[in-house]
Amino acid sequence: MSNTFGSLFRITTFGESHGAGIGVIIDGCPAGVAVDAAHIQAALDRRRPGQSDLTTPRKEADTVHIQSGLFEGVTTGTPISLFIPNADQRSDDYSHIAHAYRASHADYTYDAKYGRRDYRGGGRSSARETAARVAAGAVAAKLLAHFGIETVAYVSAVGEVEVPVGYELLDLSLIDSNLVRCPHPETAALMEARIRAAQAAHDTVGGVITGVARHVPAGLGEPVFDKLPALLGQAMLSINAVKGFEIGSGFEGTKLPGSQHNDEFYTDAVGAVRTRTNHSGGSQGGISNGQDIYFRVAFKPVATLLQPQQTINDQGEAITLVGRGRHDACVLPRAVPIVEAMTQLVLADLLLRARANRV
Amino acid sequence: MSNTFGSLFRITTFGESHGAGIGVIIDGCPAGVAVDAAHIQAALDRRRPGQSDLTTPRKEADTVHIQSGLFEGVTTGTPISLFIPNADQRSDDYSHIAHAYRASHADYTYDAKYGRRDYRGGGRSSARETAARVAAGAVAAKLLAHFGIETVAYVSAVGEVEVPVGYELLDLSLIDSNLVRCPHPETAALMEARIRAAQAAHDTVGGVITGVARHVPAGLGEPVFDKLPALLGQAMLSINAVKGFEIGSGFEGTKLPGSQHNDEFYTDAVGAVRTRTNHSGGSQGGISNGQDIYFRVAFKPVATLLQPQQTINDQGEAITLVGRGRHDACVLPRAVPIVEAMTQLVLADLLLRARANRV
Amino acid sequence: MSNTFGSLFRITTFGESHGAGIGVIIDGCPAGVAVDAAHIQAALDRRRPGQSDLTTPRKEADTVHIQSGLFEGVTTGTPISLFIPNADQRSDDYSHIAHAYRASHADYTYDAKYGRRDYRGGGRSSARETAARVAAGAVAAKLLAHFGIETVAYVSAVGEVEVPVGYELLDLSLIDSNLVRCPHPETAALMEARIRAAQAAHDTVGGVITGVARHVPAGLGEPVFDKLPALLGQAMLSINAVKGFEIGSGFEGTKLPGSQHNDEFYTDAVGAVRTRTNHSGGSQGGISNGQDIYFRVAFKPVATLLQPQQTINDQGEAITLVGRGRHDACVLPRAVPIVEAMTQLVLADLLLRARANRV
Amino acid sequence: MSNTFGSLFRITTFGESHGAGIGVIIDGCPAGVAVDAAHIQAALDRRRPGQSDLTTPRKEADTVHIQSGLFEGVTTGTPISLFIPNADQRSDDYSHIAHAYRASHADYTYDAKYGRRDYRGGGRSSARETAARVAAGAVAAKLLAHFGIETVAYVSAVGEVEVPVGYELLDLSLIDSNLVRCPHPETAALMEARIRAAQAAHDTVGGVITGVARHVPAGLGEPVFDKLPALLGQAMLSINAVKGFEIGSGFEGTKLPGSQHNDEFYTDAVGAVRTRTNHSGGSQGGISNGQDIYFRVAFKPVATLLQPQQTINDQGEAITLVGRGRHDACVLPRAVPIVEAMTQLVLADLLLRARANRV
Repeated sequence: MSNTFGSLFRITTFGESHGAGIGVIIDGCPAGVAVDAAHIQAALDRRRPGQSDLTTPRKEADTVHIQSGLFEGVTTGTPISLFIPNADQRSDDYSHIAHAYRASHADYTYDAKYGRRDYRGGGRSSARETAARVAAGAVAAKLLAHFGIETVAYVSAVGEVEVPVGYELLDLSLIDSNLVRCPHPETAALMEARIRAAQAAHDTVGGVITGVARHVPAGLGEPVFDKLPALLGQAMLSINAVKGFEIGSGFEGTKLPGSQHNDEFYTDAVGAVRTRTNHSGGSQGGISNGQDIYFRVAFKPVATLLQPQQTINDQGEAITLVGRGRHDACVLPRAVPIVEAMTQLVLADLLLRARANRV
Repeated sequence: MSNTFGSLFRITTFGESHGAGIGVIIDGCPAGVAVDAAHIQAALDRRRPGQSDLTTPRKEADTVHIQSGLFEGVTTGTPISLFIPNADQRSDDYSHIAHAYRASHADYTYDAKYGRRDYRGGGRSSARETAARVAAGAVAAKLLAHFGIETVAYVSAVGEVEVPVGYELLDLSLIDSNLVRCPHPETAALMEARIRAAQAAHDTVGGVITGVARHVPAGLGEPVFDKLPALLGQAMLSINAVKGFEIGSGFEGTKLPGSQHNDEFYTDAVGAVRTRTNHSGGSQGGISNGQDIYFRVAFKPVATLLQPQQTINDQGEAITLVGRGRHDACVLPRAVPIVEAMTQLVLADLLLRARANRV
Repeated sequence: MSNTFGSLFRITTFGESHGAGIGVIIDGCPAGVAVDAAHIQAALDRRRPGQSDLTTPRKEADTVHIQSGLFEGVTTGTPISLFIPNADQRSDDYSHIAHAYRASHADYTYDAKYGRRDYRGGGRSSARETAARVAAGAVAAKLLAHFGIETVAYVSAVGEVEVPVGYELLDLSLIDSNLVRCPHPETAALMEARIRAAQAAHDTVGGVITGVARHVPAGLGEPVFDKLPALLGQAMLSINAVKGFEIGSGFEGTKLPGSQHNDEFYTDAVGAVRTRTNHSGGSQGGISNGQDIYFRVAFKPVATLLQPQQTINDQGEAITLVGRGRHDACVLPRAVPIVEAMTQLVLADLLLRARANRV
Repeated sequence: MSNTFGSLFRITTFGESHGAGIGVIIDGCPAGVAVDAAHIQAALDRRRPGQSDLTTPRKEADTVHIQSGLFEGVTTGTPISLFIPNADQRSDDYSHIAHAYRASHADYTYDAKYGRRDYRGGGRSSARETAARVAAGAVAAKLLAHFGIETVAYVSAVGEVEVPVGYELLDLSLIDSNLVRCPHPETAALMEARIRAAQAAHDTVGGVITGVARHVPAGLGEPVFDKLPALLGQAMLSINAVKGFEIGSGFEGTKLPGSQHNDEFYTDAVGAVRTRTNHSGGSQGGISNGQDIYFRVAFKPVATLLQPQQTINDQGEAITLVGRGRHDACVLPRAVPIVEAMTQLVLADLLLRARANRV
């Protein structure tokens, strides 16, 4: 197990879908950051199940409790403990999978690795684990705000339905204006229809989330192994269901000739170094260059289907399994705050680490 | 700076393009692994410049020296030091970029981060740094071989020229049968033509490398942050010029419905747990499931062009720069051993870490 | 802040003296270890205040809650969260030190480092923090028991009152037979009297705890920086009030000639490698050699006195301060389980790390 | 193995007594520090064998080569590689111990741990390994000098011969005025006689080194596990032959009542916070308080004796062994720069980490 992420701004998460709850310890947040439960709660509310009829009908209050690390509303430099009690548990929902290996789930691999598993609600492999990341990200965001850094994410594709333009042509204030969290209203409507079609078919659908970080100063990223894209990539690929990550021009950029791909430098009116294009996605040599950081994260379709599937049990016998319970047909809308949180955690860590760059 | 990678099988690299040389310390390789310089050298020879007229005409001997950690040809559990002296240095080639910020290079970001940089040959940001990774990977491969694990990589796209089929339909023994390192001969010929066209145009071209690991036992990968895809992603995105990573079905998989994407489990003739499809790419819940691991890595086109480009110097003044020296028009063929090495390093580390899974 | 200890068996602690509570996340405990709350509670009960009139009259229930990581009473390989709610808080006790820098406390240094501090009960610098270590140590002990490893500690000195013989001549089953936790009854009586004299004088007294680990297999300890004595030393010196650590012959051994200090090897009746003396304290070259590991830990006298003391406030003004509240005149008896816990944590970690020694 | 030390200012050492050489990679030294080989060499010359007839007659040039990380004499933020080739090797000296387990050496434990060892000169367990630490410490010292921090160490005891006063009453400029490196000339003469007596008796003698760090700003040290005394303790106890560490009042301080031990705060003439006594040794709550840091390090007598000793071989058979070669009768004089180096490395790391304390 490795439930710690980050070097100086470091989080450790814990907890299963069922049991007392889930939580996170943030170690290394500098003293002097004003943090309030309402801010964290707002982030959690964007991730929680049961927000709308587009997501799982499972309702989880996901109420955060700040257990340590603050004094009079401000961080003291000591570890911050955030705890989210589990509620609305229905353990009996899961008895049918106690010995089954659901297709494309972690049942088999956990058994293979640990010799046992808590099968209730997926145990530690449950997407519920990401609530702890969102809570920690909300604290990181407060630190980043001291330095003017902003992060945002939105759904840019659901199945084959894609936003036709890049982030820089969108009004990102519209992200929360629809259930899908897509700032392109026409596409959002199509995405919503696509998700409802999957629901109706007792099937699921994947998609892509685009993340953007703005006003990141030049100098963040630690070559050669903790380059900015490398840590962002690790962060995103550690989220359940993520199968791909690309930054800047990504896979499409491999088709451009270098003469078109290169980002020409210039000095702007106020004397700042800028680039005319931004195929680099704000990172050169693994270090932020002051331009917008943007990237795309691929989420596979949800594995739990409300239709029969062939699989095996832990005795190797063929069985037929039908998903039960209350599951999302598409996780993308609820994954937006998770992508934001992981972005915030990476940037907070690199921000603190960059303080050691020079004498 | 963060020049250490891995938790138990841990490497630390050092060195610049110019200066005494580059190298790597491997700390944590178990005792009892037979290692010889010839094996490491063979890996380095696949990466070194000047292999053919398809790559840079710059010739670097890249001769590895084993400085510690072996006794009578076998690892002792102590740190293994591998050193590759620099040769064929032409420092005067670089005087023109001492104060220039080359487009899409690390010149500006290193200056912004550290306040100074060794501009000769790109200093630490030089692709030459990856030779140390290749050397370390060759040692990791020897460890993996004890457990039957095999890794391989090949060029699957150069610009818009792509291998039309998946890795499982290719004869991977053909990888080194052509200069491009593509096991699909017809496509290899097109790729070679594409690279020569870029050379002729004084331009460059990017592409995609596919990596495959076979016979990886179930159980490798450390949830929740050091999942197998997360560490592979970090590893690949820490390589110069890499802008994207996807595992299994990747970005394309986001367009499939869950009912098609799910990998159905079955028990094979010898009683082993297997999946009928492998959209998961050998990883479920972040842990290897015993199926093939496969992934794709996107390389942007080389930034150094042998044609004039507009940029600025470190005073912010506009200048025109023409790339000099001996540069690849396409790094993909030489990057194949780098992708293999990073795969080997990730798997060696996770293999050792998995020993602590159970009592 | 650095609230994480260990590499593979890794704990992260959090919490202040006042607030919701304190706790610990154990990440990396292998699956398959039976753990029960009663065992952890028993360890906590040996540390908690108010055990007898020899220690602080402050009573803390210190009830542990297991929040994650177990399924049907057995570890699953996922993070184990242990939480101990704070109770019996009297925040108003501490208003007089809100702006005072108590002598030999952490008030000044926390202010100097973080620019603020939670002054209630010492906040994070409170000895209460060690309860989390004791809880985690109890889990580590369960893992060690799988391998037959035993750890024990006892009070070997209180002020100038010292046990006159080495641990090997004591009946260690007597440790808990008296309030002082000293297995030498005559000395224990003198120690108790010494502590009561300090209480009567409104003063405090320090002392020494001896730790012993038996049946530790040869091979634990990771040269060159994580040698067994080095990690034990870090572990002990991270405990509040500890000012010294010595292993084996320690400071006294520096006075012996090498010819007397060397531990002669021999093969015992069952063919095991043993040493005739054990000045090495069970560690040679930083690695356990199969002999008993023993060491001594120096605790300074408690800094909080129930008598007036001169000091300054955070404005630099001279003030007179009288300790209030309910404090120990001697922490040694209650520190015994803390020393045991840190020993258990170090050995559990090194035990798991040693699995990667050989192919 | 664990050959990396430090978190932000991080060193990785490698190399055996025999073979190509030993070395160290420093990762994380900030850019902008002027470093020259002569400064490093001077530190190495204080550690090297053959300095005088008081130490081993074995002569090692110990010439340092800077292989990376500097540009025009100044650190660039990239890893600094320092290499010290082995010279004057006489491999045949060691054939007699190929299968012997020397008393109180690491021969047996390395075999037990790794299943094999490089027996030539002790391999990785050789004290020669510490040369790499000294070289790295010299670089750390250059960083510390930017902040006015000074470190020094001296021999305070050889066997039972002890300096009768504390460091604060000594003229520390006299440390290198005699062969023993003791700044109290009368005691130095006695120490020298004590060492010569051991030489004459073909025996060895241990002792104590006192370390002092001055002008360390308040705020260094990371509670709760990386407290300043904890990291210093780990650092010192990772040095070959060290069996004890104490800071401030140490073991003796456990005998003082709290009323005498407490360090009373006051404000000095220039408004700085100071303490009237310094039993704390410059650290309170694990964080530096601006007063002098001082500590004592216990070195056991050298294990290699030039007289016959009983032991066993790797078949468990009893043998008689006589030390050959060129060994120190007392390592203390040569260990002074090692203690300094480890102090410098700890402080450099904590200095950089402290930058993340506050927003």
